[in-house]
Amino acid sequence: MHATRAERDTIGQLDLPADSLHGIQTERARQNFPITGVPLSHFPALVRALAMVKSAAARANAETGGLTPDKAAAITAACAEIIAGQHHAHFSVDMIQGGAGTSTNMNANEVIANLALMRMGHRPGDYAHLHPNDDVNHGQSTNDVYPTAIRLAVLASTAPLCEALHRVQQAFDERAQAFDGIAKVGRTQLQDAVPMSLGVEFASFAVTVGEDIDRLRDVSRLLTEVNLGGTAIGTCVNAEPGYAPLALRCLSELSGFELSQAGHLVEASSDLGAFVTYSGVLKRVAVKLSKICNDLRLLSSGPRAGIGEITLPAVQAGSSIMPGKVNPVIPEVVNQVCYQVIGNDLTITMAAEAGQLQLNAMEPVVAYNLLESIRILKNAVEVLTEKCVTGITANEDRCAALLDNSLVLATALAPHLGYDAAAAIAKEALASGRSLRAVLEETGKLSADKSDKILRNAAMLKGPEH
Amino acid sequence: MHATRAERDTIGQLDLPADSLHGIQTERARQNFPITGVPLSHFPALVRALAMVKSAAARANAETGGLTPDKAAAITAACAEIIAGQHHAHFSVDMIQGGAGTSTNMNANEVIANLALMRMGHRPGDYAHLHPNDDVNHGQSTNDVYPTAIRLAVLASTAPLCEALHRVQQAFDERAQAFDGIAKVGRTQLQDAVPMSLGVEFASFAVTVGEDIDRLRDVSRLLTEVNLGGTAIGTCVNAEPGYAPLALRCLSELSGFELSQAGHLVEASSDLGAFVTYSGVLKRVAVKLSKICNDLRLLSSGPRAGIGEITLPAVQAGSSIMPGKVNPVIPEVVNQVCYQVIGNDLTITMAAEAGQLQLNAMEPVVAYNLLESIRILKNAVEVLTEKCVTGITANEDRCAALLDNSLVLATALAPHLGYDAAAAIAKEALASGRSLRAVLEETGKLSADKSDKILRNAAMLKGPEH
Amino acid sequence: MHATRAERDTIGQLDLPADSLHGIQTERARQNFPITGVPLSHFPALVRALAMVKSAAARANAETGGLTPDKAAAITAACAEIIAGQHHAHFSVDMIQGGAGTSTNMNANEVIANLALMRMGHRPGDYAHLHPNDDVNHGQSTNDVYPTAIRLAVLASTAPLCEALHRVQQAFDERAQAFDGIAKVGRTQLQDAVPMSLGVEFASFAVTVGEDIDRLRDVSRLLTEVNLGGTAIGTCVNAEPGYAPLALRCLSELSGFELSQAGHLVEASSDLGAFVTYSGVLKRVAVKLSKICNDLRLLSSGPRAGIGEITLPAVQAGSSIMPGKVNPVIPEVVNQVCYQVIGNDLTITMAAEAGQLQLNAMEPVVAYNLLESIRILKNAVEVLTEKCVTGITANEDRCAALLDNSLVLATALAPHLGYDAAAAIAKEALASGRSLRAVLEETGKLSADKSDKILRNAAMLKGPEH
Amino acid sequence: MHATRAERDTIGQLDLPADSLHGIQTERARQNFPITGVPLSHFPALVRALAMVKSAAARANAETGGLTPDKAAAITAACAEIIAGQHHAHFSVDMIQGGAGTSTNMNANEVIANLALMRMGHRPGDYAHLHPNDDVNHGQSTNDVYPTAIRLAVLASTAPLCEALHRVQQAFDERAQAFDGIAKVGRTQLQDAVPMSLGVEFASFAVTVGEDIDRLRDVSRLLTEVNLGGTAIGTCVNAEPGYAPLALRCLSELSGFELSQAGHLVEASSDLGAFVTYSGVLKRVAVKLSKICNDLRLLSSGPRAGIGEITLPAVQAGSSIMPGKVNPVIPEVVNQVCYQVIGNDLTITMAAEAGQLQLNAMEPVVAYNLLESIRILKNAVEVLTEKCVTGITANEDRCAALLDNSLVLATALAPHLGYDAAAAIAKEALASGRSLRAVLEETGKLSADKSDKILRNAAMLKGPEH
Repeated sequence: MHATRAERDTIGQLDLPADSLHGIQTERARQNFPITGVPLSHFPALVRALAMVKSAAARANAETGGLTPDKAAAITAACAEIIAGQHHAHFSVDMIQGGAGTSTNMNANEVIANLALMRMGHRPGDYAHLHPNDDVNHGQSTNDVYPTAIRLAVLASTAPLCEALHRVQQAFDERAQAFDGIAKVGRTQLQDAVPMSLGVEFASFAVTVGEDIDRLRDVSRLLTEVNLGGTAIGTCVNAEPGYAPLALRCLSELSGFELSQAGHLVEASSDLGAFVTYSGVLKRVAVKLSKICNDLRLLSSGPRAGIGEITLPAVQAGSSIMPGKVNPVIPEVVNQVCYQVIGNDLTITMAAEAGQLQLNAMEPVVAYNLLESIRILKNAVEVLTEKCVTGITANEDRCAALLDNSLVLATALAPHLGYDAAAAIAKEALASGRSLRAVLEETGKLSADKSDKILRNAAMLKGPEH
Repeated sequence: MHATRAERDTIGQLDLPADSLHGIQTERARQNFPITGVPLSHFPALVRALAMVKSAAARANAETGGLTPDKAAAITAACAEIIAGQHHAHFSVDMIQGGAGTSTNMNANEVIANLALMRMGHRPGDYAHLHPNDDVNHGQSTNDVYPTAIRLAVLASTAPLCEALHRVQQAFDERAQAFDGIAKVGRTQLQDAVPMSLGVEFASFAVTVGEDIDRLRDVSRLLTEVNLGGTAIGTCVNAEPGYAPLALRCLSELSGFELSQAGHLVEASSDLGAFVTYSGVLKRVAVKLSKICNDLRLLSSGPRAGIGEITLPAVQAGSSIMPGKVNPVIPEVVNQVCYQVIGNDLTITMAAEAGQLQLNAMEPVVAYNLLESIRILKNAVEVLTEKCVTGITANEDRCAALLDNSLVLATALAPHLGYDAAAAIAKEALASGRSLRAVLEETGKLSADKSDKILRNAAMLKGPEH
Repeated sequence: MHATRAERDTIGQLDLPADSLHGIQTERARQNFPITGVPLSHFPALVRALAMVKSAAARANAETGGLTPDKAAAITAACAEIIAGQHHAHFSVDMIQGGAGTSTNMNANEVIANLALMRMGHRPGDYAHLHPNDDVNHGQSTNDVYPTAIRLAVLASTAPLCEALHRVQQAFDERAQAFDGIAKVGRTQLQDAVPMSLGVEFASFAVTVGEDIDRLRDVSRLLTEVNLGGTAIGTCVNAEPGYAPLALRCLSELSGFELSQAGHLVEASSDLGAFVTYSGVLKRVAVKLSKICNDLRLLSSGPRAGIGEITLPAVQAGSSIMPGKVNPVIPEVVNQVCYQVIGNDLTITMAAEAGQLQLNAMEPVVAYNLLESIRILKNAVEVLTEKCVTGITANEDRCAALLDNSLVLATALAPHLGYDAAAAIAKEALASGRSLRAVLEETGKLSADKSDKILRNAAMLKGPEH
Repeated sequence: MHATRAERDTIGQLDLPADSLHGIQTERARQNFPITGVPLSHFPALVRALAMVKSAAARANAETGGLTPDKAAAITAACAEIIAGQHHAHFSVDMIQGGAGTSTNMNANEVIANLALMRMGHRPGDYAHLHPNDDVNHGQSTNDVYPTAIRLAVLASTAPLCEALHRVQQAFDERAQAFDGIAKVGRTQLQDAVPMSLGVEFASFAVTVGEDIDRLRDVSRLLTEVNLGGTAIGTCVNAEPGYAPLALRCLSELSGFELSQAGHLVEASSDLGAFVTYSGVLKRVAVKLSKICNDLRLLSSGPRAGIGEITLPAVQAGSSIMPGKVNPVIPEVVNQVCYQVIGNDLTITMAAEAGQLQLNAMEPVVAYNLLESIRILKNAVEVLTEKCVTGITANEDRCAALLDNSLVLATALAPHLGYDAAAAIAKEALASGRSLRAVLEETGKLSADKSDKILRNAAMLKGPEH
């Protein structure tokens, strides 16, 4: 028979396994929120962030006298284990939960309290010796703990995303160098426009990803401003004098992020503006990454009845019925992830708008979508780099053939003939299936020598700025 | 000097031009809502719908004794002029307005009251003889008048949209017949897949538009259920006994739509579910239309360095710098309209979610976006038909050349060789730049005769079901 | 040491555990798509649907002669086990995957082939005896199998959602009866409007949920039209004559849904319109459910400094710092789920718009979001019913006190005094803090008797229609 | 009879009024895009921006020798008139247009050419003397002109929006000071939480708006990076050496914005990342403004059966049937504008994602939605300030009564009694309808003196940090 212990709150009593690290409030939350099946532990960065906040609070409380040294030591030691990656499975409440994160905070309070109790020689549940709310949560409220922990978790998750983006940027750059000087048709509105090089095309992918990294780093700074110390709705009620700056300093040390206190704690308690802005930047990254993947799929279309200027590495059979078919599955999966990130941004937007008065009760769905978007975006970018970009090859002959056959040099004629005359020549070439040069010669408007020089220069991508 | 008249309400007094058809409440609304600059009159279907509701109510009130015959007659006559297209400029309140449509209803009440007053020999503003609220609005509330009028306006606007869609469907069908039997490469994931005909490709556009029309007609039926007669929050307060069915019958006659009363008037007063569903169907139409336009742009890409299987009619010069360039500007503008419709759907969604208790105060922005989406979608579809689809031509030689050069017949080999062997042949053909037939012959797996027959049949699009 | 087997495709060779039920293509997909971590098996309805499609195809192929009876029998038996809930863990490819579902189809083909091989006395991987593509996928393409299976999975998942909605509808109805006759203030735009009863308010919740169920059932019909038999892009290539209707009939029997063939198979291969429409209806359900939950939170606000007309059951402690606080966590979690469903609808919309030419490569993210939205919505509605609605209690005294103290009877005066005079009385009552009756008497406009009768009738919710 | 002139292009000939300032390309665009009815001239900032770009280009071309001094002078003078506000009506192409802005650029080229021609003593249409493309568009492409002009227009429109936001921030601050020290119930999740002051609540609105202004200014900087000089797809084709930096310097002077050249012109030609990011920040502003307006509506709910802590100024009659009703119409209209801005952000997102290869053809719908969102947001914020915030009054007695009657002081007891005991007292007080103090005294856990002191301090908002 399994031993149990009873815990009670104002609602009533619940039986738990005697050695359960979580307590009655976690258990109630598990029963109240059987929604996604995705527990807090799915995001280790969030669990670690919660433990860092609790540890920082305990240290600060020890200094202000809010906690006895032995209680603070036990709490801090318990948190250290969690930060080191232990006990995460006990953070089991669903990511989507009612209550503005209270259940997440309660889950952290209870697990840490029980770990600390065991360390002090007591059994789990003996809260008379160390209490989840009175001690672990001392001087804190979900109102400040939860948003602070989410910020930390997002900050910690941003670094790997930026690294993944940096690697794909490097991969594009490396391809750009490999493709340097491969002249091809540049296209606007899917119509042949002017000559360019494949190297420049890939360099532009690298540049655009680089800008996204910059924007992510910019927006991350908004998240280093936290409301820890504000307790309930930013009133600082029940926090000892001097607690807030101490807690903040400890948390900066523990997390490695240089955190600052929000300028107005009541405003900060209900405001999700920084998350909306961050998500807006994630959306930007998704939009641009999706555009790049669309381009990769267009440029590799074919292999014979499409553009076919590049070939993506084959990573799996493309069809269950069409033998030999190879599909651009890696860019496709990235596209899909981008649509998911954009959809998640909408969820975040609606949840942020739903805040009321001194709090936003919808914060958990914001946290879930932010962390999930970062996670799948990072995964997708890594796959894109490793399974696709690094192995892309150029089909030089195809690039050259399409360029030779095109009418994209007409633009170079305009300064010499005027726009209207150049347009008439291009139209005639297209209609008759001839080359620009042939039609141009027929008009006699330029000497063969001059037209030759103009067209050759243009084809060699030698503009005045090159 | 311009003569003025003074009107008053509980807030105070306002001076209006003596002959102003609108009164103090309209004037206040004009001052309170200088938002978009788009007045009610921008949507004639809405102005007419308001007049129909007011006319139907007056007739019903005349029958129940709620209005004297002469007042009812004057109101009805005024409404008839508005339904005929007169006086629309006096419906001048901004489409986006606070107050759940109260200002729209007040605007209608005041204009109709003043028109009726003049018809009765009084001056505008002499409300003692006929009052905007006590008489024109008799037995009514904005809570039932406004949603009923929006439903009518959307229903009336749906017909032209469906006609425009029907015309583009016919245009695609007509092109499908013209392109019948033009064999080409079918593509999945932008990769060459199996042979198909250009006629079938265009027929599929026609079929998909036809389904959209069906869905629009289905969803329109939801809008024929109205809450007229519910007055304030569906309580029927201040409506005479028997009024509701009389008003509904009159409105059905006037509008030509077979209307029915909502099953639960309190529920119906705050519920925008039918608008959300309708907008969801508009979004579907936009999604599919955008996909078609993307396809038209892909298929006409080039003219020489793209797919180039079809040519869209040239409707304007494509570039200010690149002479002779022609762009697919008509599909492009349709794409943009589709994105607008999808964005508007989100606005409608958020506004619908924001309803509270017995009413949804955000209904005006819903009405505006619904009517605007219908309007621009109709405009876009008309342009697509007239300026693009009807003039599309097939490039038969290009279709044939791409098909001949492709490896899309490999699928037809699989039943004879097995998937794995067929895949190996396709891979070898691609790698070596040879034809399937050449590689197949080399393997000796099929007699020349048999392979010839298989490939010929496949290329002629003769599958077992054809 | 673990025994392995080698499998090969045109890309190369991979070693798998000798007894692995999945083969090389599944393994490649697992490596290519480490995105969400959510495998196909997360949605049992989808795995079962895949097995039903494969079973129906095998039966049809047995009849047309496309498969030998023993192969068909082995495949059918393997599928039966999967339909019965076995082997789901082997459907391990990520839900978000490139390739338009090819990896999902390959996963099903391989697992079923290996189960069938074992049943036939062979070892997994001995595809010479029964091949994933040549046999299990015989006469099929991902292009028809995958969308058909998704449709089945969505249909199968709709039933539990509708049941959950039906139960919450009943719970609201039951509460409506319990609250019958409890008079209270009806509110528009958060302002006191006219009297109504709490019973009617809850009845309107029931009615609105009932309409959602109707809409879900309507839209489900769109999904019973499938493209099975179309094979690659709807050309029916490689399917035996007569196969399609046979397969459809078998699938209808197996699934219990009356399925029909899409009218135009090429159109049906790339069209995701039905999914967009279905998702639009899910969004409608979410919008309305969110509005109801907002209302429950408003009506239960307080307990003392809000509206407080109802009390929601307490299901957990509401705060880690504020003792005794109880929060509306169940409606809150439902709100969050609704925002997630609305965000997912956007993902579906963008993915549907991204279809190109003869296929939509983004279908997997559509399937994932549709099934996930249905799942979490069902979970949320169940929690709402069980943990909240059934236990809601009315605070009758509070309802009565707020009504008595309000000015909502002014509307009833308008027919007797005119709108303007009634407005002036209401304004004076508010400004002076007195009751309507007191100010009315002071004006002497109505006899005490008459005003008493009007106000009493109005307060008893006795309008002309009641 | 009206005199006409004929213009021709490669498509054919069109007759225009002889004095038409626009030419054939504008006319074709007017006929091709009858979509929204909103012409370029609807956004004067855009028309001015176009003229600034053209003027800067002409000056630069004069310096490089690309234009003769007299042509450059005529063009510059024409532009000056447009910048001064003249001739805007001739910018008549629809804002939503196919062609990536080509029609907008052509419209500008033609109007400026004709104005310049007249100034040079020629008639409109005598393009032999000065040509829209060869001269006005010299060294330019729509690819660089259009995005540069949009950036300038957005920058110019941001200033008034920030000013409007600054004024509402000041209005909130002014109200915060007026409401200083008015103690009231702070609420989380619509439940009574802890005491706070109305002044702090309004101060938090001011702070949050101030942060939005900061974010708008931050993001504006992204827009000062322009691709002018890149011409077609960023290749600089047809621009004279030295042109780009000259044009940029002139444009900075003309516009007053310190502009810089994009780091990679090919990347910059197709990238809409800065617009997506800007729109994401607009969405943030909308989300937060909507939350504030929701709060204003909640706090002013009633007047008697709601929270009623504040009163919004009455700006119009609230109902056509309910006399004396006053509604929060100004916050409501702001909410609606916020939903529109959020919907517009989605349109922008989808359009940005739809870019292909070297250009984004959907830029016009991006420009339209950005400029429209800024415009209506500014209008809404101005109305909010003037018609609502500045006139808000506090209902001090109501604030005090709700606070006194509440149980929000329980939190202050927790440090003295422990969380569990304090919770039990709060629960008992609520259940029995008594005050915290009464129940607390009964328990005998604190001396009357001590409990008095704790509760008094808490009610006076004196926490340790205050």
